[in-house]
Amino acid sequence: MIKHLVSIDDLSKKTIEKIFHLADIYNSQLEKKEHIYICKDKIMATLFYEPSTRTRMSFESAMFKLGGKVISSADTKSTTSAAKGESLIDTIKVIQSYADIVVLRHFKDGSAMLAAENSDVPIINGGDGAHEHPTQTLCDLYTIRKLKKRKIYGLRVALCGDLKYGRTVHSLAYGLAKFGAKIFTIAPKGFELPEYVEHRIKSEYGIEIKKYNKLGEQLSQADVFYMTQKNEPDLFPRLSIEFFDAVYVTRIQIERLKGVKTVSEQTMSYFINKELLEKAKEDTIVMHPLPRRNELAYDVDQDKRAAYFQQAAYGVPIRMALIAILLGLKKLKFGVNKKLPEIFTLDKKCTNENCITTSEENAQNKYIKVNDLANTYRCFYCDQEQGI
Amino acid sequence: MIKHLVSIDDLSKKTIEKIFHLADIYNSQLEKKEHIYICKDKIMATLFYEPSTRTRMSFESAMFKLGGKVISSADTKSTTSAAKGESLIDTIKVIQSYADIVVLRHFKDGSAMLAAENSDVPIINGGDGAHEHPTQTLCDLYTIRKLKKRKIYGLRVALCGDLKYGRTVHSLAYGLAKFGAKIFTIAPKGFELPEYVEHRIKSEYGIEIKKYNKLGEQLSQADVFYMTQKNEPDLFPRLSIEFFDAVYVTRIQIERLKGVKTVSEQTMSYFINKELLEKAKEDTIVMHPLPRRNELAYDVDQDKRAAYFQQAAYGVPIRMALIAILLGLKKLKFGVNKKLPEIFTLDKKCTNENCITTSEENAQNKYIKVNDLANTYRCFYCDQEQGI
Amino acid sequence: MIKHLVSIDDLSKKTIEKIFHLADIYNSQLEKKEHIYICKDKIMATLFYEPSTRTRMSFESAMFKLGGKVISSADTKSTTSAAKGESLIDTIKVIQSYADIVVLRHFKDGSAMLAAENSDVPIINGGDGAHEHPTQTLCDLYTIRKLKKRKIYGLRVALCGDLKYGRTVHSLAYGLAKFGAKIFTIAPKGFELPEYVEHRIKSEYGIEIKKYNKLGEQLSQADVFYMTQKNEPDLFPRLSIEFFDAVYVTRIQIERLKGVKTVSEQTMSYFINKELLEKAKEDTIVMHPLPRRNELAYDVDQDKRAAYFQQAAYGVPIRMALIAILLGLKKLKFGVNKKLPEIFTLDKKCTNENCITTSEENAQNKYIKVNDLANTYRCFYCDQEQGI
Repeated sequence: MIKHLVSIDDLSKKTIEKIFHLADIYNSQLEKKEHIYICKDKIMATLFYEPSTRTRMSFESAMFKLGGKVISSADTKSTTSAAKGESLIDTIKVIQSYADIVVLRHFKDGSAMLAAENSDVPIINGGDGAHEHPTQTLCDLYTIRKLKKRKIYGLRVALCGDLKYGRTVHSLAYGLAKFGAKIFTIAPKGFELPEYVEHRIKSEYGIEIKKYNKLGEQLSQADVFYMTQKNEPDLFPRLSIEFFDAVYVTRIQIERLKGVKTVSEQTMSYFINKELLEKAKEDTIVMHPLPRRNELAYDVDQDKRAAYFQQAAYGVPIRMALIAILLGLKKLKFGVNKKLPEIFTLDKKCTNENCITTSEENAQNKYIKVNDLANTYRCFYCDQEQGI
Repeated sequence: MIKHLVSIDDLSKKTIEKIFHLADIYNSQLEKKEHIYICKDKIMATLFYEPSTRTRMSFESAMFKLGGKVISSADTKSTTSAAKGESLIDTIKVIQSYADIVVLRHFKDGSAMLAAENSDVPIINGGDGAHEHPTQTLCDLYTIRKLKKRKIYGLRVALCGDLKYGRTVHSLAYGLAKFGAKIFTIAPKGFELPEYVEHRIKSEYGIEIKKYNKLGEQLSQADVFYMTQKNEPDLFPRLSIEFFDAVYVTRIQIERLKGVKTVSEQTMSYFINKELLEKAKEDTIVMHPLPRRNELAYDVDQDKRAAYFQQAAYGVPIRMALIAILLGLKKLKFGVNKKLPEIFTLDKKCTNENCITTSEENAQNKYIKVNDLANTYRCFYCDQEQGI
Repeated sequence: MIKHLVSIDDLSKKTIEKIFHLADIYNSQLEKKEHIYICKDKIMATLFYEPSTRTRMSFESAMFKLGGKVISSADTKSTTSAAKGESLIDTIKVIQSYADIVVLRHFKDGSAMLAAENSDVPIINGGDGAHEHPTQTLCDLYTIRKLKKRKIYGLRVALCGDLKYGRTVHSLAYGLAKFGAKIFTIAPKGFELPEYVEHRIKSEYGIEIKKYNKLGEQLSQADVFYMTQKNEPDLFPRLSIEFFDAVYVTRIQIERLKGVKTVSEQTMSYFINKELLEKAKEDTIVMHPLPRRNELAYDVDQDKRAAYFQQAAYGVPIRMALIAILLGLKKLKFGVNKKLPEIFTLDKKCTNENCITTSEENAQNKYIKVNDLANTYRCFYCDQEQGI
């Protein structure tokens, strides 16, 4: 039994499958317009320190469909005591007296873990800085499972766009790895998947990620074999959209590019459009966590392979299932993924400037040893790997 | 059957009368403190890209009184993905999975029509730029009908103040024309009713608007006859408040005067006060969509002819009726006003810089031919007339 | 019977005790998870012109636990017509048609009284400028009564920190005086309790406040006797934390220090920490209205005498009781404290620049004569004393 949802990594494959099963049930109850009023006396607080359309609104919609109430704080940063400098820990210690469950979105990496440690009521991570966004990942995986009508194991999934600052894609990569998908990344230079994510995926799931910078890139024979399981280098000499069962596009997270002043036009115009999609397979699905900019052309919307609005819609049953389970209203055995690692409290600030521990006076510096690397620790909150 | 409320023009006279009838019923049920829980499982989203007190809160109050739930977004511009550059179309395509009905206020003219075109759930226009505000008009017409205790046909209504940028007054002018009221405008120079509004009213309803710049203006004999139906030019040589059955005052929409830096004092101090009201008839009503500035003096509040707070209060039953009808819970035949005009998709941007089509990449340029003017088209979204 | 809660002074000791009694009942019903759905058809509006975590959220939580609905306006200043310059009076006159009860937080002193005068529905003051915050005081007094398990009469309470700009502490001082507590203030120079507060407490309750600038200060023999009721000047030559039954700490209200550019480090580091607490009595409680800055160290949190999170939690049952009583759903005789004083409407603006009457065009200048001072009047709205 766990109490919070901080990282997709908190959930075992079995638990995720149980959440999906419950989401299926809610989905069909909603279609039949049945009442599902199990949260009648429950209050959810949505604490959003950063803008959100999908996450906040789909959580509120989910809670209403379960019969519950919502205390909404769409702009926590400027409309609460955060504006007077209140720490996140203090805010959480107060809110837990007012609500039965809290959805938190915060601009700092690791904030959700810090909140969870200090809360008696369940905390759901609705996005913490550039770190994770596990409920988005649940929607993503659920969408793949529903639309592909098969297991995720072995599916070839391309993650495209800004893989460095896009938190949704980090959580998704862990999730895909957990289910045994084949992961390919296609990111402009400077926007590649962070090494710590790649490293964890290899060490924990044994999955080797194939990394590219753009479609059309020359492929090695080994890569072609990996993708097609045939030795046919002449047929597929270059990276093509037709390899993939699902293409997951993300936008450049301009709001996180603090130091960087300009993003090259080539980077900004990185996209999937109707023309490119013509080369894809009949049943390839195109996904996007939204909002999009120009990386995903509007002319794709009419294509039946466009899955992103369905992906957003699945947010409701998935979040209903999560709320019900975390509130203990559905007695699924909600198991942890693995044994808790040993935590080291060290006298050393995390090297990630955007880590919540750097701004939260009352936070301790906790680390987890990275097993196979000498003197390397991972921040307990933001997962940043660092030498000690 | 129509699905959305974008313009007051969407509603036939008969449909408006049915809405008023349902509002009467709700009004009396509220007075008797009866429960009207027909929206128990329904969710309304209020998407407000611009500030609002009356519109958002009265819609939320209306939905609560119908037993429904509300996902509230009072500051959509900065607290949602709009802050990350998401298009209105994408936002709407997502929200429709979370809510059963959407109230939209947006700073761009024509935004409500664009949203309606892209939505599977009913869109209610809660104000789109300087364009229209049809639910305000329904409240305005309802207030006149209730307080004057008679038909609107033939009533002499003065529209005063900023008639150029005040969207409420555009919708009201159409509504009054539809019901056959006599419309007089009194606006400072530069703030007159736009020509396209005047033009539509003449061509569609055959109503000739009488236009003045201030009270006290010299009148022609024809005007005096029109107002009094008597030939008595000596008695009424100048425009006087005593001509009118209802005086509708609006404030200067300073927030829309982008290019204009100063508004002359004369313009700003344009107002109705107690002293002026002494010359009005016993049963003239003074209306204002609120908020007011100095165009309507506080000393009028105590006068029994002051109708503006009652006008705001009628927002609740009117909006209850609208929600119930648009959600299909009241099977009134909610007819369209007229046959849909032929739409021309042209390769030419609308000339109104504030039209939603100028900022929304995925919007098409659609126009309607203005019947009696050669080469003149009206933008399908913002109604701006333009030569093609 | 009174209708609004503007000042803690509106409530007699008996009424406060009745509120506490009802809060006790709700507290135990909440613990037993009983349904308390007496507000099923009621709507509360929370109008917050200033940031808030505890007040808004605990009111919304309280209303939900009573089964009611909430129209939430967390950022009234920029998301409503206030952004277009609407007066508070007009806003209130409109809102009262949409909600059955209004919780108002406003940056101007006296705003709650002005709202109450113009409202047909109950107004609850959720904090008006630097003036009062009566529901916080009810929570404070309730916390003392619950945690000290005895009457407040005779308890020695130290009020520490910024006592000038901290509105919570003004209301609390009146409340403590009403119940006969011994009040001690410990405030840095420039942050002492305003004279008008001290003066009212002496003239109305006969309580003499003992004023100090810091712990460790030399005490007079009389002071020592007052605190200990023994003549032992050698034992307690200096002001010590061990004198007090409750220590109430407040933060420097930096957001109200308009004219003041710097706050000395000594002032800013004024605080209670673990080390200091070691000298306090076993059963002394440490309170804080929160949010805190460095005046209250995090190392106090683990101490069982730390009462501030419990104090925040008590906000829910207290506010449930208040809502139920003000809505007339609990027929406690909700008596006024005293006869209403004679009000003088004078042709003179209040000298307090932050008084609501200085910005609200339609507000009158009302004063109450201060009985024992010649030519001295107290502003009816903000309580500022001034010569006339």
